[in-house]
Amino acid sequence: MFITFEGIDGSGKTTQIKLLQDYIESCGNHTVIIREPGGTAFSELIRDILLNKDVEINPVSELLLFEAARANLTEQVIIPALKNGFYVLCDRFYDSTTAYQGYGRELNLEEVLNCHKIATFGIKPDLTFYLKLSLEESLERSAHKNPDRMERAGREFFLRVLEGFDAIAASEPERFVIIDATGDIEATHRKIVSFIDMKSHNK
Amino acid sequence: MFITFEGIDGSGKTTQIKLLQDYIESCGNHTVIIREPGGTAFSELIRDILLNKDVEINPVSELLLFEAARANLTEQVIIPALKNGFYVLCDRFYDSTTAYQGYGRELNLEEVLNCHKIATFGIKPDLTFYLKLSLEESLERSAHKNPDRMERAGREFFLRVLEGFDAIAASEPERFVIIDATGDIEATHRKIVSFIDMKSHNK
Repeated sequence: MFITFEGIDGSGKTTQIKLLQDYIESCGNHTVIIREPGGTAFSELIRDILLNKDVEINPVSELLLFEAARANLTEQVIIPALKNGFYVLCDRFYDSTTAYQGYGRELNLEEVLNCHKIATFGIKPDLTFYLKLSLEESLERSAHKNPDRMERAGREFFLRVLEGFDAIAASEPERFVIIDATGDIEATHRKIVSFIDMKSHNK
Repeated sequence: MFITFEGIDGSGKTTQIKLLQDYIESCGNHTVIIREPGGTAFSELIRDILLNKDVEINPVSELLLFEAARANLTEQVIIPALKNGFYVLCDRFYDSTTAYQGYGRELNLEEVLNCHKIATFGIKPDLTFYLKLSLEESLERSAHKNPDRMERAGREFFLRVLEGFDAIAASEPERFVIIDATGDIEATHRKIVSFIDMKSHNK
């Protein structure tokens, strides 16, 4: 099963992925956890460029770099892991690109979706958990961090990103599960597990 | 005017671009010469990854990296130069990607063309000179070089690339000018100049 986690910084994706991994492995299944972009030598090189404060990157180049890293990760890690029966848990996938580059940077959405198509070789997550947080809550939770290139984009940008996630949720309600990220960590975890068990039964 | 040069290694693109630059500047016009990928700090980073022998890059990631570099170059250099009345002379542009990644690596052509569209912000060369050389002649001329990642792709690959250039030429005869790359350097230069003068008069 291919499961992705989405949400702005501070929404608790990393914590929930770790809890879910423990649960899945305690049931006797294997997992692969992926952070996007990253996870392969190639993808880490791309990540370095994307987070480089000294290089100016326009929104289209940014989109294409994310997709290049994704194509590598999908082919080298995700597809082989799924073929071998692993649960693949991904910290961000193409929905982040739709929200951040499509909505946030206001690129042409059809062109963004075309890029997802070529970069993912046609695979789609079975379930996507969107840990929904308001901009205020996100800022509060990540206030201690240094702002990097992505985070310096400003308030209007992040409001468009949130709007993007809402639009994706509305267009794919079967796959895209909205979870209130302000809830109790354990309760959120149990909610996520119940969705996965439900999906497993229906497969 | 936006002029691109295409052709496999050893076809004499660099020599002809230099001669054309001298001619255009002798007429009192300004030129910008661009090598693709490269020419900006960002684009050179991408070039380093593409030529890195230690990193495995699948054909889709390779395509997307070329397009990321192109989007940067187009926005930062080509569009501003054209707006300021410069002649832009480009050593390879998106036709190389169609030929090498589309035909050579056998990617879906429609998806490749979609990527060109997003990466070029809709601009197209006014003229493209395809310096046509057979595979045998190309190998002979570049035999002294060390093979890099691109060059180690093998004979079948390059035959498909040549087929790709022929297909592009057939589909866009107005823009895509086929020039025999085995001819005399000066004669080839005069031929190129005559096409540019003709295009200038018709503009």
